[in-house]
Amino acid sequence: MAKQRPLRSDIAWSSADTIAVHGYDLARELMGHVGLGDMAFLSVCSRLPNAAESRMFNAMVVPLVEHGIVPSTLAARMTHAGAPEALQAAVAAGLLGLGSVFVGSTEGAARMLLAAFADDSATTSVEERARQIVAEHRAAKRIVPGLGHPVHKPVDPRAERLFEIAHETGFHGRYVALMRQVAVEAEQATGRALPVNATGAIGALCCEMGMPPQAAAGLGVMARAIGLVGHVLEEARQPIAMELWRRAEQEASSAVHGVLRDGS
Amino acid sequence: MAKQRPLRSDIAWSSADTIAVHGYDLARELMGHVGLGDMAFLSVCSRLPNAAESRMFNAMVVPLVEHGIVPSTLAARMTHAGAPEALQAAVAAGLLGLGSVFVGSTEGAARMLLAAFADDSATTSVEERARQIVAEHRAAKRIVPGLGHPVHKPVDPRAERLFEIAHETGFHGRYVALMRQVAVEAEQATGRALPVNATGAIGALCCEMGMPPQAAAGLGVMARAIGLVGHVLEEARQPIAMELWRRAEQEASSAVHGVLRDGS
Amino acid sequence: MAKQRPLRSDIAWSSADTIAVHGYDLARELMGHVGLGDMAFLSVCSRLPNAAESRMFNAMVVPLVEHGIVPSTLAARMTHAGAPEALQAAVAAGLLGLGSVFVGSTEGAARMLLAAFADDSATTSVEERARQIVAEHRAAKRIVPGLGHPVHKPVDPRAERLFEIAHETGFHGRYVALMRQVAVEAEQATGRALPVNATGAIGALCCEMGMPPQAAAGLGVMARAIGLVGHVLEEARQPIAMELWRRAEQEASSAVHGVLRDGS
Amino acid sequence: MAKQRPLRSDIAWSSADTIAVHGYDLARELMGHVGLGDMAFLSVCSRLPNAAESRMFNAMVVPLVEHGIVPSTLAARMTHAGAPEALQAAVAAGLLGLGSVFVGSTEGAARMLLAAFADDSATTSVEERARQIVAEHRAAKRIVPGLGHPVHKPVDPRAERLFEIAHETGFHGRYVALMRQVAVEAEQATGRALPVNATGAIGALCCEMGMPPQAAAGLGVMARAIGLVGHVLEEARQPIAMELWRRAEQEASSAVHGVLRDGS
Repeated sequence: MAKQRPLRSDIAWSSADTIAVHGYDLARELMGHVGLGDMAFLSVCSRLPNAAESRMFNAMVVPLVEHGIVPSTLAARMTHAGAPEALQAAVAAGLLGLGSVFVGSTEGAARMLLAAFADDSATTSVEERARQIVAEHRAAKRIVPGLGHPVHKPVDPRAERLFEIAHETGFHGRYVALMRQVAVEAEQATGRALPVNATGAIGALCCEMGMPPQAAAGLGVMARAIGLVGHVLEEARQPIAMELWRRAEQEASSAVHGVLRDGS
Repeated sequence: MAKQRPLRSDIAWSSADTIAVHGYDLARELMGHVGLGDMAFLSVCSRLPNAAESRMFNAMVVPLVEHGIVPSTLAARMTHAGAPEALQAAVAAGLLGLGSVFVGSTEGAARMLLAAFADDSATTSVEERARQIVAEHRAAKRIVPGLGHPVHKPVDPRAERLFEIAHETGFHGRYVALMRQVAVEAEQATGRALPVNATGAIGALCCEMGMPPQAAAGLGVMARAIGLVGHVLEEARQPIAMELWRRAEQEASSAVHGVLRDGS
Repeated sequence: MAKQRPLRSDIAWSSADTIAVHGYDLARELMGHVGLGDMAFLSVCSRLPNAAESRMFNAMVVPLVEHGIVPSTLAARMTHAGAPEALQAAVAAGLLGLGSVFVGSTEGAARMLLAAFADDSATTSVEERARQIVAEHRAAKRIVPGLGHPVHKPVDPRAERLFEIAHETGFHGRYVALMRQVAVEAEQATGRALPVNATGAIGALCCEMGMPPQAAAGLGVMARAIGLVGHVLEEARQPIAMELWRRAEQEASSAVHGVLRDGS
Repeated sequence: MAKQRPLRSDIAWSSADTIAVHGYDLARELMGHVGLGDMAFLSVCSRLPNAAESRMFNAMVVPLVEHGIVPSTLAARMTHAGAPEALQAAVAAGLLGLGSVFVGSTEGAARMLLAAFADDSATTSVEERARQIVAEHRAAKRIVPGLGHPVHKPVDPRAERLFEIAHETGFHGRYVALMRQVAVEAEQATGRALPVNATGAIGALCCEMGMPPQAAAGLGVMARAIGLVGHVLEEARQPIAMELWRRAEQEASSAVHGVLRDGS
């Protein structure tokens, strides 16, 4: 029989008159004193942010809340159509599509930038590191995470705004600089417009704030849960799922409608 | 063939240089100007809050973020143990348990209070309405939602704090008054301490802010998604799921271990 | 501190050379000897079925596997579009919509029929019980679960086939008889065609087989998981989610496209 | 505006009196004629199996149904504790942990074997291919998928049974042979007992049956959904989640209990 290892979580405890979250008294020190964004920072970093961190962090999660009608909000709305009594299930269904295609690039960008500075003793310039990143991705035929956008051209307005706020708050450091230089190198190498997009900017800023790369994915998940609640509430008062289903079913099955194997 | 009904969502749109959320320019009007809590209010109410609404709303969602080790955070941690590559799936798994047992009472309290004032022309006093609510629930042997707590006695410090902030912000109206009076009546009728708990206070405040009752459940879901990200990140660096599994498996299967139907 | 209660599960155990499921040796008694349907019966009833039970049970779950393009399969496909690396998440997203609207009526029918025979000493006839059920639902303005179908008219071919097999296997007992009589009474009371549908037949047969009503919902969930895997595999080779999203987004946001609150 | 691409699904269609699944008449050709395992084969392969395929396929999915108390069944039970009204959500929560740690190796083994035979013109022997696979994985410090088991030693009884049935049904072909030879080579290279486990055997058999590698993951997901229903039903009558939670919470929070940052 294996020896028992202790179970330990440092996040919260409560007694008859006190609830503590990461060591702060919830009722006396948090409620009425901090906003939801600071609570999110607390969840990720295990401490409250200072003023600059709070401003930067809120600007990073605010653009992740809402993306309109996208596959994840449609999954949530389809789920609500079948189980309107379980709002939590509709939101969860929406979160499940936040994988490699839409949200993964934030974490991918963060990992790429952290790896580039892993050997900290090097005197390599930002330009050289950027060239190396682009060359390696091209050699491996992999997309550089955090660059380009099908709609927002020539620049992603969210990334530009994040860089502005990063300057104001002191978070425009080497990771942001490298991410922007990677875009310059990628544009030169490919001849295409490949500006830093929102996921690239947020991934770089997660590095600046000392968060682990998995946290980068976490920001997207927590923010989108908020937006998904809004979609489920709109679906409840102004539904689209049933109509979209009817159209999709009719068109998609028309190719085989009426066909049986036995020819009857 | 049924006639097509139009699909419509008023939440967001984007063009090459602009992203709009509920009519606000995301990069110019929201990022750097509003916090995550105001974005959450925007998702629920389709407009930004004023200062009093922002203060009240943030105080309502902040205590919902984190509850420590509870079934939903354990479900998330168990999921992370099997699929560490899919943070979104672990958070979704945690959300799925936010049903009738733990979160439902917020929405239940909101529905109860809205129903009590549905006939607005009545001159019934708050005391009378509260007596009627308690009597009806006792007759139907149903628990009054929003009252009592197994740990926080004699009062729930979160509810008390919410009432304070409601006074300060002007949201201590008839719904809050009725919820508190329901507690008084329930304590008299049962002889037990049944203070308003956090879900009762938040349900009442959702009514004060003009939110639909389903939104009350939504606040819990969005806030807990934030806390669940924190638990998954802690599980990644300080795991408990595998150890808890090993203990549970060993103890739970010991009653049947070695037993086969054919007696071999 | 509360006293510890024991943890116990009787489902499975394993040692170095044996894996036992509900007391059967998995490798020697189940693999190669029983089909997946019998394993499903074993999961629900904690014992293997006899031949009649196996035939009836398989006929009950087979029609639940596949319903074509419906909201739940669209939710799964939308999830796959965002997270193609996580097939389990796409299937889970599809399951989440199996709530009150589409699957709930199976469990509802089972509960209704069990309640009707709860007072077993009564000499009430099936006709009388059916009349009472229809009268009660009409008085409460609630839909009788298990009746009617928007497409399958005048009868649901799955229900008819289930009744045939129930006759052959000896499961056409009082619950099935009552469900069918409820349809007769409902048609007389409303003047509309309200035949027993697949969920009504399956709910009644769950009662005949001695399963708890929650198991009725469980049959739908397990069967649909199988069909959802098929949809995710088809989506991978012949995708529709991205195209459906593009159409939905374009149409749904057209009403507000270009509109900003500040009038710019 | 992008041109519309057609939506097409070949899985099912229905009319007033017929429901067709992959071209078979559901009520007349499937119900009462095929078992759930054959329906599962139909979902994956878009046609019914012959007798040998049916025997082999059922033997592959039967051992995937039930694994006792494991992280995924605990996630489902924790979810049921919070949302007992939503069985589908509990099953979905359980599925979400079927990721890289527990189920991924089936798909990984299938991909590895398919890649080894991708260059079909080669006259390379099975021994040589096996050596190359083991060498490559060792060079890259990656675990060879489908080998070894912490409990089932020296052999996994499920794999042995699958190989027996593969011999009987004619599915013991080159993929199974290579998987077994990989085990031989891995044991020689490492000096440790590394028999083919159930996931390795099932992955190889998916290749033999001509299924895509993603289907290998799908088998685990569909089968476990069945077992998860059984766990939720047992949790409903013999609960363990709440007790396990209480123990975990008490132990895990004891290290920080009573500690506040401000020292109060």
